[in-house]
Amino acid sequence: MATEATTSRNAALDKLCINAIRFLSADAVQKAKSGHPGAPMGLAPAAYALWDRVLKHSPADPAWPNRDRFVLSAGHASMLLYSLLHLTGYEVSLDEIKRFRQWDSITPGHPEWRLTPGVEVTTGPLGQGFANGVGMAIAERILAGRYNRLGHEIVDHFTYAICSDGDLEEGISSEAASLAGALGLGKLIYIYDNNGISIDGDVSITFRENVGARFRAYGWHVLGPIDGLDIDSIAAALREGQVERARPTLINVRTVIGYGSPNKAGTGGAHGEPLGEAEMELTRKALGWEHEPFVMPREVIRHMREAVERGRTAQSDWEHHFEAYRGKFPEEAAAFELDLSGTLADGWEAALDAVHGEFDSAVATRAAGGKALNAVAGVAYTISGGSADLSVSNLSFMHGRPLFQSDSQDGPNIPFGVREHSMGAVANGMAVHGGVTPYTATFLIFSDYMRPAIRLAALSGYPTIFVFTHDSIGLGEDGPTHQPISQLMGLRLIPNLNVIRPADAHETVEAWRAALARRDGPTVIALTRQALPLADADATRGLAKGAYVIYESAPDPEIALIATGSEVFLAVAAGKLLAEEGVKVRVVSMPSWELFEAQPKSYRDSILPPPLRKRLAVEAGTPVGWERYVGLDGDVVGMDGFGASAPGAVVYEKFGFTTDNVAKRARALLRREE
Amino acid sequence: MATEATTSRNAALDKLCINAIRFLSADAVQKAKSGHPGAPMGLAPAAYALWDRVLKHSPADPAWPNRDRFVLSAGHASMLLYSLLHLTGYEVSLDEIKRFRQWDSITPGHPEWRLTPGVEVTTGPLGQGFANGVGMAIAERILAGRYNRLGHEIVDHFTYAICSDGDLEEGISSEAASLAGALGLGKLIYIYDNNGISIDGDVSITFRENVGARFRAYGWHVLGPIDGLDIDSIAAALREGQVERARPTLINVRTVIGYGSPNKAGTGGAHGEPLGEAEMELTRKALGWEHEPFVMPREVIRHMREAVERGRTAQSDWEHHFEAYRGKFPEEAAAFELDLSGTLADGWEAALDAVHGEFDSAVATRAAGGKALNAVAGVAYTISGGSADLSVSNLSFMHGRPLFQSDSQDGPNIPFGVREHSMGAVANGMAVHGGVTPYTATFLIFSDYMRPAIRLAALSGYPTIFVFTHDSIGLGEDGPTHQPISQLMGLRLIPNLNVIRPADAHETVEAWRAALARRDGPTVIALTRQALPLADADATRGLAKGAYVIYESAPDPEIALIATGSEVFLAVAAGKLLAEEGVKVRVVSMPSWELFEAQPKSYRDSILPPPLRKRLAVEAGTPVGWERYVGLDGDVVGMDGFGASAPGAVVYEKFGFTTDNVAKRARALLRREE
Repeated sequence: MATEATTSRNAALDKLCINAIRFLSADAVQKAKSGHPGAPMGLAPAAYALWDRVLKHSPADPAWPNRDRFVLSAGHASMLLYSLLHLTGYEVSLDEIKRFRQWDSITPGHPEWRLTPGVEVTTGPLGQGFANGVGMAIAERILAGRYNRLGHEIVDHFTYAICSDGDLEEGISSEAASLAGALGLGKLIYIYDNNGISIDGDVSITFRENVGARFRAYGWHVLGPIDGLDIDSIAAALREGQVERARPTLINVRTVIGYGSPNKAGTGGAHGEPLGEAEMELTRKALGWEHEPFVMPREVIRHMREAVERGRTAQSDWEHHFEAYRGKFPEEAAAFELDLSGTLADGWEAALDAVHGEFDSAVATRAAGGKALNAVAGVAYTISGGSADLSVSNLSFMHGRPLFQSDSQDGPNIPFGVREHSMGAVANGMAVHGGVTPYTATFLIFSDYMRPAIRLAALSGYPTIFVFTHDSIGLGEDGPTHQPISQLMGLRLIPNLNVIRPADAHETVEAWRAALARRDGPTVIALTRQALPLADADATRGLAKGAYVIYESAPDPEIALIATGSEVFLAVAAGKLLAEEGVKVRVVSMPSWELFEAQPKSYRDSILPPPLRKRLAVEAGTPVGWERYVGLDGDVVGMDGFGASAPGAVVYEKFGFTTDNVAKRARALLRREE
Repeated sequence: MATEATTSRNAALDKLCINAIRFLSADAVQKAKSGHPGAPMGLAPAAYALWDRVLKHSPADPAWPNRDRFVLSAGHASMLLYSLLHLTGYEVSLDEIKRFRQWDSITPGHPEWRLTPGVEVTTGPLGQGFANGVGMAIAERILAGRYNRLGHEIVDHFTYAICSDGDLEEGISSEAASLAGALGLGKLIYIYDNNGISIDGDVSITFRENVGARFRAYGWHVLGPIDGLDIDSIAAALREGQVERARPTLINVRTVIGYGSPNKAGTGGAHGEPLGEAEMELTRKALGWEHEPFVMPREVIRHMREAVERGRTAQSDWEHHFEAYRGKFPEEAAAFELDLSGTLADGWEAALDAVHGEFDSAVATRAAGGKALNAVAGVAYTISGGSADLSVSNLSFMHGRPLFQSDSQDGPNIPFGVREHSMGAVANGMAVHGGVTPYTATFLIFSDYMRPAIRLAALSGYPTIFVFTHDSIGLGEDGPTHQPISQLMGLRLIPNLNVIRPADAHETVEAWRAALARRDGPTVIALTRQALPLADADATRGLAKGAYVIYESAPDPEIALIATGSEVFLAVAAGKLLAEEGVKVRVVSMPSWELFEAQPKSYRDSILPPPLRKRLAVEAGTPVGWERYVGLDGDVVGMDGFGASAPGAVVYEKFGFTTDNVAKRARALLRREE
């Protein structure tokens, strides 16, 4: 009897809490006159089952390292997350909920990392969150492998996500799911919100696959379908997912979009717009919800805020464990804390300094990059990453260190497979998890495949490092399908993304230094396939400022040649040729626009004096964009088309990337009347 | 006895032909000192089974409309295709084979459409070809549904592809496979080159899924695994695939990469570099191949060139069928020929002309675009396409016309699902197939998801039309994750891509006109979510020239405001404000850089006179790139960050997109000393 009464009281309370989530979400959407009410209404029971019964988290300290991670991959259901955060006691006030989707609120249309306490990662563009979660699970396993000791599992958490039909339709999720299966990420537990509806209506017009069978084929542990109202079964499935440690778990939960809305439940009409005042009223009646918008019953608050105390206890228990760990393993404990702080181990800069001495002749910057990576990774052991099946071309493997595999404990070399897009998003997930320093590698042309993930890293400020080799037509025979023309400039267009294209081995080492030093955003390093002559090692320290004078024939130059990467030595050679002819010429190596633009005006003007209008940019990519530095009075030696298949040296020559042609274009510019 | 002798003679001949393909490919790679020998060597028997026994094609006329389509999705195996083309009698000479990967050859590193007779589509970036084939199969079914009559199946061909492990790892293939399964594309037959090796070695380090089970989950008919040497079984499976008309077929063929190479077969060493002279010698011995490089046994040539006569006969039979069809259905026959020529039906321009009259007040350009599309599609019925699950937002549905479904015959409305990347590549496949005029639609932010497909359309000159709505921060509440900042400029960087951002409903109609008139490359049309005031309908015909003067207060202007899309009316309002203050101001509407740059210098100088250096660009996107028109002496009202979640009007105001702020910036520019 006692049990039954408890169950019954709990059932009523559960129902109240679930409706609280539904109405808080739908009312906020209604007030904003914008947003997605349907998913939160359908998902409320499943989300409640997870957050109330299963999730290990500490609303009072959203940064507790051993918390479970929760990813709302279906980011358009943001109000679901904000409701959960508010109700369980995070610093998300009711006022902020009321300001959903308004200027300067912490409750934007889609969740944004670090803007809102408790939001683990920025989501919204579909599929990204799915892959981010995979990265979090990888980071967890790397840290667990590195730091856990028998009886001292200081790293031990799950990564949960809620994914929509749209998430699973996106290719990036397929890539990430296949990777997660191959790597046996058993602590990944995803809820599939199987509501059968997307913006264009019934998903069956285009999405008819057997999702469960597909995920089983990837090596996942698939549970369900489970009725989306049945929180006991959902909680049980989540626990079953916890027990399965060899395979990631997908729980297929059948939900009804817009649940409770008499006229819109189960239709596309509940997806992407407010239900409307009248329909909200009908929904209140249908669900027996008697409260005004934004009025939460006291018992809901009381019950759901128990998460705060539960979280404090869990965190405090963990902190005791951690102190015991520190007692036995003081060095490891200190290293663990250092890793989580995002600080690299002492000596990483010295390790890079030492690499400079290794170069004594022409070398491809991809090879120099590989040396820099290997040297620094020997010290800064948090560096973890890999290539999209091109590590032998990218030279991005960390030698002597293990491969991340299903049976390995902490291999920092991650075999991403031919899956560029998810590689980017997985690395982003590693970055937000913390404790690891992620990098990726592929050909520059395939940066296009990863662009949505790179953009989100920039938007949210993840310190992910994206290495791209084969960075121009200089890659040669692979031809136009593989020759990047618009990619470098395209990356420069993304705010908060540092793009570095080093001119030689020394600049490459400095590029790695700049990338690793950056904590507030991502960095792209673009490297050559072909060998490049060495510049002066000391001079290349100028990379830190983005651009510097690498050659000057005389003071008060009449022309400036500005080049990046593999075109710098060409510009220098052309500059020397012009100097022999008596031209006063300056050559600027400009590996990074962003680092240059971060310098004070006085420095920038010292490199490119405003009165000096004869400026010739040289870069084996699109000329569009270089007018930023050469203006209407300058010129650009660039690529107008898509390149061609032939040996790299031939392609360079045919497209005018020769000393003679650069000098010729400079002379023409000097002759041109202002 | 006779049969046995024949079989035996044929078996020997088959073996010779297969080795001919292997050595022609590997020797060309060896001569080029660059390329991928392993895949052609492993795939030779399967490719031979397809090309010798199954494929319906006409080497003498690679444009025969009813030919089967063959896609080498694994484009790095290009020498396999070039060998097949040469041996079966296409205009690919032995000299061109010897010039593999050399300047100005027709045998580049990866196959390029229209460069090489018989190459159906440009491939190389993995996964693209897989999705292109799906588009070809869609086009075939649309045309079959439209033109076939009982007993007169004038459109009836298969689409074959060879896909690698890498192809299947890419997310784009997952998207396209799921779509093909949902749409029941039964005439799609793909060979999966299951060789277990990719560049980084054994694929099992990252690719452990059950590919067959995965494709069955998508609704495919899966055959195999079949031994890659067993051409009889492979041919039988291909025929079994032909019989299955409700589901696409995947044939899992187990091959050995670099087959025949004693030291490199089955290893990553055979993948992406020549085997080396010594290993080539050993391979010759191992396979009993006694011929010098590029010497093809006469019996191989004789046998494989039978494809020419076989193709002529098949084509001639079809032409007879077609003449019979023409006799009974003369109008349909004429329309079919018109469609294949890529010419739109008469009256399409008049249909667009008529749309102008439908606008009498402010309207979102996405709505105007929907009207233009619907009007023109009523006449130019080849227009086929759809949205990545946003048709209700993109307003891109062709009303009153059927949805393409597994049981529909010719629905031109294609439900691409939340699969932007494959949508782009599927549309490209439709474009190269011919007979249809493909378009796609999604939000501008998701152009990033499609970028590799858009780039290939531009590189190869496919006339695909890419519609993107919600083209700026003006989309409002969805926030920074959905607000495109760098996308518009990023698309402008791609050579041969026309990017059009119309300023009002009238310009939108003209944008559709320009896009549909273009046959040699793709066009992007960027449209607003929010309503925009109407400009003068006649003036907006200036769109064809890319930029035109939309307002001028006085001759000899001292400042030019240059704007695109939703910022044009703002620039005009600011211009009028400045004019009231006595400033001589010109406002230029510049919907398309590319169309503008295609004009003669005299026109360009008439719009932006070189001496006029006070130029202010206004665009709600990154300012980077606008220096191309405003130079070092101008300025840009643009977006420095990523936007924000709030109502569109608020976001516009907060980020300075107001009449007052534009006027203020113009005044500051006028005051600035030169």
